[in-house]
Amino acid sequence: MTLQTTAYSDLLNSTPEQVRAAIRRGSYTGHTAGLATGKLQCNLAILPERYALDFLRFCQRNPKPCPVVGVSDSGDANLPTLGRDIDIRSDVSKYRVFRDGVFAEEIDDITELWTHDLVTVALGCSFTFENALLRNDIPVRHIETGRNVPMFRSNIDLMPAGPFAGKMVVTMRPIPESQIDQAREISARYPHAHGAPIGVGDPASIGISDLSQPDWGDAVEIKAGEVPVYWACGVTPQNVLLDAKLPLCITHSPGHMLIADVAEDAETTILPLQ
Amino acid sequence: MTLQTTAYSDLLNSTPEQVRAAIRRGSYTGHTAGLATGKLQCNLAILPERYALDFLRFCQRNPKPCPVVGVSDSGDANLPTLGRDIDIRSDVSKYRVFRDGVFAEEIDDITELWTHDLVTVALGCSFTFENALLRNDIPVRHIETGRNVPMFRSNIDLMPAGPFAGKMVVTMRPIPESQIDQAREISARYPHAHGAPIGVGDPASIGISDLSQPDWGDAVEIKAGEVPVYWACGVTPQNVLLDAKLPLCITHSPGHMLIADVAEDAETTILPLQ
Repeated sequence: MTLQTTAYSDLLNSTPEQVRAAIRRGSYTGHTAGLATGKLQCNLAILPERYALDFLRFCQRNPKPCPVVGVSDSGDANLPTLGRDIDIRSDVSKYRVFRDGVFAEEIDDITELWTHDLVTVALGCSFTFENALLRNDIPVRHIETGRNVPMFRSNIDLMPAGPFAGKMVVTMRPIPESQIDQAREISARYPHAHGAPIGVGDPASIGISDLSQPDWGDAVEIKAGEVPVYWACGVTPQNVLLDAKLPLCITHSPGHMLIADVAEDAETTILPLQ
Repeated sequence: MTLQTTAYSDLLNSTPEQVRAAIRRGSYTGHTAGLATGKLQCNLAILPERYALDFLRFCQRNPKPCPVVGVSDSGDANLPTLGRDIDIRSDVSKYRVFRDGVFAEEIDDITELWTHDLVTVALGCSFTFENALLRNDIPVRHIETGRNVPMFRSNIDLMPAGPFAGKMVVTMRPIPESQIDQAREISARYPHAHGAPIGVGDPASIGISDLSQPDWGDAVEIKAGEVPVYWACGVTPQNVLLDAKLPLCITHSPGHMLIADVAEDAETTILPLQ
């Protein structure tokens, strides 16, 4: 049997269901940036039920880096509030598996690993507010230049819960000084996608020593008249999960998000009951 | 020893700490509407830890009636993200205790009932958006007339989680037709306080047969040119908790809310770490 492969360009005008179907049958394994425009994309954390209460408490206490947009029943691979036909074991194009806090493997299907006690927590992601910035003619440098957003460990303490604690990871986007208020106002409309910036200006004020040396992602140029603006980053909960050294924890791979049926500008991230 | 009593009027210009202190020492047992203006007031649900994960899942799936603004550690009577010095066993002026889903008693201190496995979940309340409507010259009839807001069981199904399920309870406020869009826009800014209305107009469309016969609270007049507007109500989670017949569940008494240190218009309901 030859497996038909689907190109990124084939999926550009596809619905969330169509993109997830291509991923589920294994014909698309690429990143999801720019796909299913206008729909919510999600960071993923899949963990054993006995850690789920503390993890939800942690997310509630740190809503800017960890905006919860969906939580599964224990052992249930569906996420009916995010999509009509989501199977979280197969509908993400790349997963990362961690055991005892150590990276174990990157795979494109976790059906074999699924157990009755796993809980999926879906978290909002920055694609949502970046799309809104672009629609309002605010430049987003890493998108313009085809790079990954630069991410930095800050010195901002997170509110702990159970085994979960640490420092906030932030993203940086250079914004023209005259557009900072507008960028703040626009991103604040998306509390499910990290909300308003957590800081503006001097990187040292939040413990970043060198903006040209991001801890993850790519450095980007800050042009004359631009100011670095920092947002809470979805890598935060991933780091915190790893540091907690859970026996098993599964996340999406960076850029390979879960695409939901929910509109990214919906008032809540919950699909109504059918 | 004579216990000094504090009058409502004595507390009108008090801080949240001062109001909670008066409640804690037993000198004030009244309602909290209008106290600590500008600060978040909260509905309360205190329940055994083994039900907390499902209850948080239920709240996540029903964010408009159940906006979570704080969750305690198990057995911890403090809520540090909501206030510096909250003791949830004594800082609410009246509590209702339910056993196996049946009302057991109304008391003003739950220290004797506290156990190591209780979890407090604090939920946003409608005071927040009502204050915002009033500030914008939108009339709120039940406040004008010194009554309780009328509340109705709707036919809107809630998204279930574990033992928690049921129908949404809604409040009704008559709004002048010309101000409905503004009322919607203002309340939508407060997702932690039930957000935008869930319906406008015909009560039958959401299963309400007679607006003059509320299930809880008081009927209010709908004047010429006004339209009934419905918001999700914090009585919803209380009903759902009772229907789940937990061995023990403690709530605030209606109108006797927890007053937090958090500003009601803050971007998140989390106080920064000190």
